[in-house]
Amino acid sequence: MGSVKTRRMPRAVREQQMLDAAVKTFGQRGYMAASMDEIAELAGVSKPLVYLYLNSKEDLFTACIRREAAALTEAVRAGVRPGLGADRQLWDGLCAFFTHTARNPDAWAVLHLQARTHPEPFAAEVAAMREEIVAFVTQLIVAAARQAHRDPDLPEREVAGLAEALVGAAESLADWANTTPGVSARQAATTLMNFAWAGLGSLMEGRSWSPPDHGRESSAP
Amino acid sequence: MGSVKTRRMPRAVREQQMLDAAVKTFGQRGYMAASMDEIAELAGVSKPLVYLYLNSKEDLFTACIRREAAALTEAVRAGVRPGLGADRQLWDGLCAFFTHTARNPDAWAVLHLQARTHPEPFAAEVAAMREEIVAFVTQLIVAAARQAHRDPDLPEREVAGLAEALVGAAESLADWANTTPGVSARQAATTLMNFAWAGLGSLMEGRSWSPPDHGRESSAP
Repeated sequence: MGSVKTRRMPRAVREQQMLDAAVKTFGQRGYMAASMDEIAELAGVSKPLVYLYLNSKEDLFTACIRREAAALTEAVRAGVRPGLGADRQLWDGLCAFFTHTARNPDAWAVLHLQARTHPEPFAAEVAAMREEIVAFVTQLIVAAARQAHRDPDLPEREVAGLAEALVGAAESLADWANTTPGVSARQAATTLMNFAWAGLGSLMEGRSWSPPDHGRESSAP
Repeated sequence: MGSVKTRRMPRAVREQQMLDAAVKTFGQRGYMAASMDEIAELAGVSKPLVYLYLNSKEDLFTACIRREAAALTEAVRAGVRPGLGADRQLWDGLCAFFTHTARNPDAWAVLHLQARTHPEPFAAEVAAMREEIVAFVTQLIVAAARQAHRDPDLPEREVAGLAEALVGAAESLADWANTTPGVSARQAATTLMNFAWAGLGSLMEGRSWSPPDHGRESSAP
């Protein structure tokens, strides 16, 4: 499904090497601080060649975001087998997500920390990827609700909120796992699955938490 | 507890007006695009006065982050009454958080989108605030575990992971609520509380989800 169309293999290979070097440099030093000299040196090519192939620092950064966003969504989709139960699909998706972010910490930093806040078009590229992942998680939650046969009509807005919560939790845990020694992808996935599934599982069974004003009060001392 | 020491009231008032204008401008246009001219005009003062009081664009941005980070953590702490049950404390904290981020969307954009990825010292300021909130949530989760008397020894790393997940989910939902028409602070808090508490509640009662390899398999088709 690769979108790179090329007749001359060497150029494609070299471009990937430049992108590898760029992802590493942008991820570790940030967009502003990263220099094209550094990237060219790390890629083992001349700076003019980087400009010839990728045009500008902005276009190079955009190419990094596109490649890494596609790789991350592809990793998550590839990790999930559609026929299985919703909890198994979510678990497999989380494992794939955390494995990918752990193996590609610079790419994750580019996507989550560097690209989101820089001016357009960078933020829009990442927002599109995030929307795709949120949509995917939304499907899983809807499937889980159907599977439970308890609340097939879980309100659309509620599902959207749950998907946003889950994706935000996953992003936060990926940062945490990548900066906390000894936390494996599997541990991060287990923590989130426990949190998310036990919670979603309760919701699907109709056991929700009620705000104090509208329902039961919590125990006061 | 304010750290601004001043003998001349007008200066303190003017500084706050400058910071109000700066938060609005940085929040809506981003750090790079925001100009000191714009900020001075919005504050109704001359540009030299902004420089005289706040020194530089960088220092002004830092002052914005500090003020807004302090206001957010203070709002959350003020919303929570320590004597109540852990679920009630969490609910009150979430309501306070989403109410504050909904009322101060520009401040939230500065803290969550603008400050995190710019070079030091901005990112460090926000990281410190985030750590404080994570520590606060960690306390609540530990208190909930004690309260449940089921798993008072929930492993430290597991609690840390749950707190990161919860804070990440809250950040994501705050962005979502601020960009989705008609989503109230209460709705965002209810969604997350349902997600988090039903999940944490199950965990506290010893009902956790087990990965397929180590425990029960999900239903395959």
